[in-house]
Amino acid sequence: MTLTVLIAPSGFKESLSVDDVSQAIAEGVRSAMPDATILSAPMVDGGEGTTAALIHATGGQMHKTSVTGPVGDPVASFWGVMGGDGPKTAVIEMAAAAGLSLVPRDRRDPTLTTSRGVGELILRALDHGVQRILIGCGDSGINDGGAGMARALGARLLDKRGRELPAGGGALEHLARIDISGLDPRLARVQIDAAVNWHNMLLGPKGVARVFGPQKGATPRQVRQLERGLETYAAAILAATGINVGAAQGAGASGGLGAGLIAFANATLHPRFDIMLQYLEFDRLLARADLVITAEGSLDGQSPYGKVPCEVARRAEAQGIPTIALAGTIGKGARETFDHGISAFASIVKRPCSLEEAIAKGDKLLRRAAEDAMRMMQVGQRLALR
Amino acid sequence: MTLTVLIAPSGFKESLSVDDVSQAIAEGVRSAMPDATILSAPMVDGGEGTTAALIHATGGQMHKTSVTGPVGDPVASFWGVMGGDGPKTAVIEMAAAAGLSLVPRDRRDPTLTTSRGVGELILRALDHGVQRILIGCGDSGINDGGAGMARALGARLLDKRGRELPAGGGALEHLARIDISGLDPRLARVQIDAAVNWHNMLLGPKGVARVFGPQKGATPRQVRQLERGLETYAAAILAATGINVGAAQGAGASGGLGAGLIAFANATLHPRFDIMLQYLEFDRLLARADLVITAEGSLDGQSPYGKVPCEVARRAEAQGIPTIALAGTIGKGARETFDHGISAFASIVKRPCSLEEAIAKGDKLLRRAAEDAMRMMQVGQRLALR
Repeated sequence: MTLTVLIAPSGFKESLSVDDVSQAIAEGVRSAMPDATILSAPMVDGGEGTTAALIHATGGQMHKTSVTGPVGDPVASFWGVMGGDGPKTAVIEMAAAAGLSLVPRDRRDPTLTTSRGVGELILRALDHGVQRILIGCGDSGINDGGAGMARALGARLLDKRGRELPAGGGALEHLARIDISGLDPRLARVQIDAAVNWHNMLLGPKGVARVFGPQKGATPRQVRQLERGLETYAAAILAATGINVGAAQGAGASGGLGAGLIAFANATLHPRFDIMLQYLEFDRLLARADLVITAEGSLDGQSPYGKVPCEVARRAEAQGIPTIALAGTIGKGARETFDHGISAFASIVKRPCSLEEAIAKGDKLLRRAAEDAMRMMQVGQRLALR
Repeated sequence: MTLTVLIAPSGFKESLSVDDVSQAIAEGVRSAMPDATILSAPMVDGGEGTTAALIHATGGQMHKTSVTGPVGDPVASFWGVMGGDGPKTAVIEMAAAAGLSLVPRDRRDPTLTTSRGVGELILRALDHGVQRILIGCGDSGINDGGAGMARALGARLLDKRGRELPAGGGALEHLARIDISGLDPRLARVQIDAAVNWHNMLLGPKGVARVFGPQKGATPRQVRQLERGLETYAAAILAATGINVGAAQGAGASGGLGAGLIAFANATLHPRFDIMLQYLEFDRLLARADLVITAEGSLDGQSPYGKVPCEVARRAEAQGIPTIALAGTIGKGARETFDHGISAFASIVKRPCSLEEAIAKGDKLLRRAAEDAMRMMQVGQRLALR
């Protein structure tokens, strides 16, 4: 009996990328079941590595380009076009143009950093004639609410004297008016979806400036400045577009890029795994699959709350497909995942060992764990057919 | 679908008895599959714990008694009668009457220790009217070739002047003649089988005195004395009975008790797991089983060479029944067991942890590992029936 196995893991934090994990699992499955058909849905969250994973999974193409980086200097960047026979789809991860890792440590001042490069990547995709753009948010180094992106796309941000504001979130408190008449008209003709952390709000005590500003290098005084700027920005957006980004779920994602995407790029924000699964055509893959294998560094009582294994497993269960989970650590509360679609799980650890050893051998352990789990399932198959 | 699961594990050395292991696995199986039928075949090797495990597995009865201990003082001992509807069967483990743990540390002199108590246990079983006696060898503290047992059963060991030898292997070098005319006549009417390490020889470089004497406290000089004694003993046995114990496989088991069992108790020696499996009616249990679960502390490249998991798995495979193995450590070479009947295996370890932690939590980990393996097999069953 040949099986079709859909591999839909997360990366293992700080040790294995999602592509590493997917490949190790695929090899393990093939060791136990050489004729298995392998489908792949790497579960990325929109942050660093999202483009590569989606391009790799769909056989798409990566495009290298240079854009304005977060501190204003040009940076080497990239975007991708997904493979497959669906609509022509670009993938952009904001971190590739405005990520924290692109901000030199001695220039981590989120009152100055800009999202302009994200807008430039969007223009590249439009030039390429794509029908859809998926924008992954996460790992950002900016706090300009997407103002830089908006300007790259043709908006003008003006102070009360009608002068263009300088770049960065710090200047937004001087914003008087936004002129959207020059926005690229092509934006109205493509579908733009953004994968965001749904709980990131733009303003207030749980707003992006207060929660994430300090991580990006903001002093307490700068945090207050950034918060004032985003309040002013939201009011100007409301005046210019009628859109209330202050109340929008996810608008605070990536230093408020979510707000800019809604206001100027005609984008729709989505909880990150929802839209990732949609672009990966997860339901279509599921329809072909007999079994789903997911994985994450740890499976525990937190897994049902927004972590990859249960996000995947719930959807699979809805289609009647069993999901098994592999993890470095099967932790406290892991059995709760049985109520969230996980049918069985296994650790990659095969003997008493240190965390360092498990991480160092993670790739091999994961391959073996996938093989061993398949073998255990094959015993079950044999029992069923006896 | 209800399954019948035959649990046939070894104990986990120095941490879990075979009964502990069997019970933990049974509980784990029932957690995942409450309607499973559980059969039990605890794999003991004839040494300490053999009687308890066989009595427990068959619903038999334990008998307490007092016998002559290895240093001549009375010791509290026991033997058992197996349950079930087969022939009335006694189980004796030699270690309960002449085990090393019954020899005080300051009296570990194998030239003096005696197997007399083993003969006394056999007499108790004969008094009870049993039809069969299974004698487990292993963990002995004696090196008298079973001479003490022989005397308890009615044999006389005489020096050249016709005087009875003192007890212990050291005196055997003065043996001139064995008088077997007084042996208990009931020995001829019962079946006695002994479970031995098949590779233990009585004499020579790989003989019991040289290999095991030092472990029991013998000095190099005493080793030579014991070897001379056993040579003299073997010659006297040949003269008295026509039996060449010097050439018999297993005759060196338990300080040469194997030789005495052949010569005086009309016993047949067997490779230990062969006869254990026979008395446990393993084939009859197998015929009812859908699945075998075995276990040992470590599964590795040594497992195919006489270790419980592969001994069990080979027999199961011959009947077309799959075997899975659980182990504390899945070690180097464990995959070789796939060529010896093991269909799949899993470690009880669920995360990076120390050996001490794994041992301390062994019971719970094993229970969970059995449950998790069953769950993985249930996914396989579901896949087969899709």
